[in-house]
Amino acid sequence: MYDLIIIGGGPAGLTAALFAGRSRLRTLILEKMGVGGRILLTDTIENFPGFVGEASTEELIKRMEEQVKNLSIEIKLEEVINIDCKQKSIKTNAGTYAADSIIIATGARQRKLGVSGEDRLIGRGVSYCATCDAPFYKEKNVVVVGGGNAVAEEALYLTRFAKQVTIVHRRDELRASAILQERLKVNKKINFVLSNVVTEIIGLNKVESIKLKDVNTSQERNIPCDGVFIFIGYEPETDFLKNKLKLDDVGFIISDENMATSQEGIFAAGDCRKKSLYQVVTACGDAAIAADSAYKYISEAQTYGTK
Amino acid sequence: MYDLIIIGGGPAGLTAALFAGRSRLRTLILEKMGVGGRILLTDTIENFPGFVGEASTEELIKRMEEQVKNLSIEIKLEEVINIDCKQKSIKTNAGTYAADSIIIATGARQRKLGVSGEDRLIGRGVSYCATCDAPFYKEKNVVVVGGGNAVAEEALYLTRFAKQVTIVHRRDELRASAILQERLKVNKKINFVLSNVVTEIIGLNKVESIKLKDVNTSQERNIPCDGVFIFIGYEPETDFLKNKLKLDDVGFIISDENMATSQEGIFAAGDCRKKSLYQVVTACGDAAIAADSAYKYISEAQTYGTK
Repeated sequence: MYDLIIIGGGPAGLTAALFAGRSRLRTLILEKMGVGGRILLTDTIENFPGFVGEASTEELIKRMEEQVKNLSIEIKLEEVINIDCKQKSIKTNAGTYAADSIIIATGARQRKLGVSGEDRLIGRGVSYCATCDAPFYKEKNVVVVGGGNAVAEEALYLTRFAKQVTIVHRRDELRASAILQERLKVNKKINFVLSNVVTEIIGLNKVESIKLKDVNTSQERNIPCDGVFIFIGYEPETDFLKNKLKLDDVGFIISDENMATSQEGIFAAGDCRKKSLYQVVTACGDAAIAADSAYKYISEAQTYGTK
Repeated sequence: MYDLIIIGGGPAGLTAALFAGRSRLRTLILEKMGVGGRILLTDTIENFPGFVGEASTEELIKRMEEQVKNLSIEIKLEEVINIDCKQKSIKTNAGTYAADSIIIATGARQRKLGVSGEDRLIGRGVSYCATCDAPFYKEKNVVVVGGGNAVAEEALYLTRFAKQVTIVHRRDELRASAILQERLKVNKKINFVLSNVVTEIIGLNKVESIKLKDVNTSQERNIPCDGVFIFIGYEPETDFLKNKLKLDDVGFIISDENMATSQEGIFAAGDCRKKSLYQVVTACGDAAIAADSAYKYISEAQTYGTK
């Protein structure tokens, strides 16, 4: 029996644990992949306060994990299979755990395009992580799909390896921040195909080309390429919460300013929440609040026996 | 003319500048004391994600300042005297500045007890900063007033110097986090006088004793001491905003989840806001959101000429 179980071991989960541990809550973190989560797919984080330079992501997570381990908080690498939100009981692939309170910090995953060829060619030219796969595309031609900051960052990273990087975006301009757009524009390896959507990814055993459709003229054409990197946004890792907590249409958890969800004693933090700005520092801010809310909830429950 | 003026150069102001700078807003920070603000009165920060160990506060601020300077953001050490929230014009002790948007990140200052002798003996035994003044109390007896985390941290710091540290608190238990309370209890230099309030600070040219009143029996008594450290909470640095923005009774700025205040184009972040949890990491989270909101406001205003 724990005071608190945190589902997710990324920046939000680790920060929640840091605050919970300092309040001496008996805390368990359940993380399905590895400590750090999705952020480790990126090499550099430039907009987290206090972290500068290359490999800053790894450094950030290493130090956050150190803080949590200094507080003797348990981390189990297990995947949550089922959750009983009323009983606050959690079933993983390896066991069953119960707690007085739960913080959900499961983050989000890359969204898929949903076009023909995409699933079949994953790992054979289709990728959702430039940092992971870029070295395979030395002197090759790659296409990057999307228009936000992630696209810009990953495209720039890919130019260290690829011969040419083509950014395909459905709108007529990118949404990426000004500083990133400037860097894209001066980089000679990068070119743009705007106002176009990908309708198919083509290839027998590996990606050979993609089919594009102009959103204005509906004209279609093929572009030959060796890889397709897709960064068209995220969807929350909340499948296991369907019909158990109040979610929005896409699956993001609805929570209030204290991070309280629709179920008493269950709190949310980070990218799995519906909110206006998805950044590491806002995830960490959420997490501190969620841990504080969980602490108050547990203290009351344990004092008055109301749980 | 700037796109954005940020008032306050503490963690919230610096983080807002980091995000604003990456969106290429022409940004000015106005800070009345020195970059870092009140946080530098503390030596160690243990609960900011990614920072571990002694002098971590200085390290955190140094790196945040580096991030901001890398973006060529201007920092002026000037005090804001007056603000016109409609015109978004700011008068300091040295000049007048205008911008399309303003972020207020002025933080908070220590609250005073408001008892006789307190003002007269500031710097002569009355202090609001253990990190600043502790070395003056080597082998002396000091009293620390308050019950929260700040009291616990500062009392522990004082034990490195003082002979004896007496914590006076009006309630029958402290509010400090469990981990800090444990450290207090095992420290032999620390003792507690609970359920007592300070009614007077006594001394001719320097503190000689304090007068206490038991909140249950109303009995009064004097405790001799060489110093009084006061940590009874904070009040927001918002005097210049009175009758200009919607504030609560104490002066904290009322803002929504996008950090928007009652005046269009003016946003708030950090300890000057009314909110549930006052921590460095939540201030930084606020600031990222405020900068994003300011960016969206400015983009719209500049596109449609609505400002």
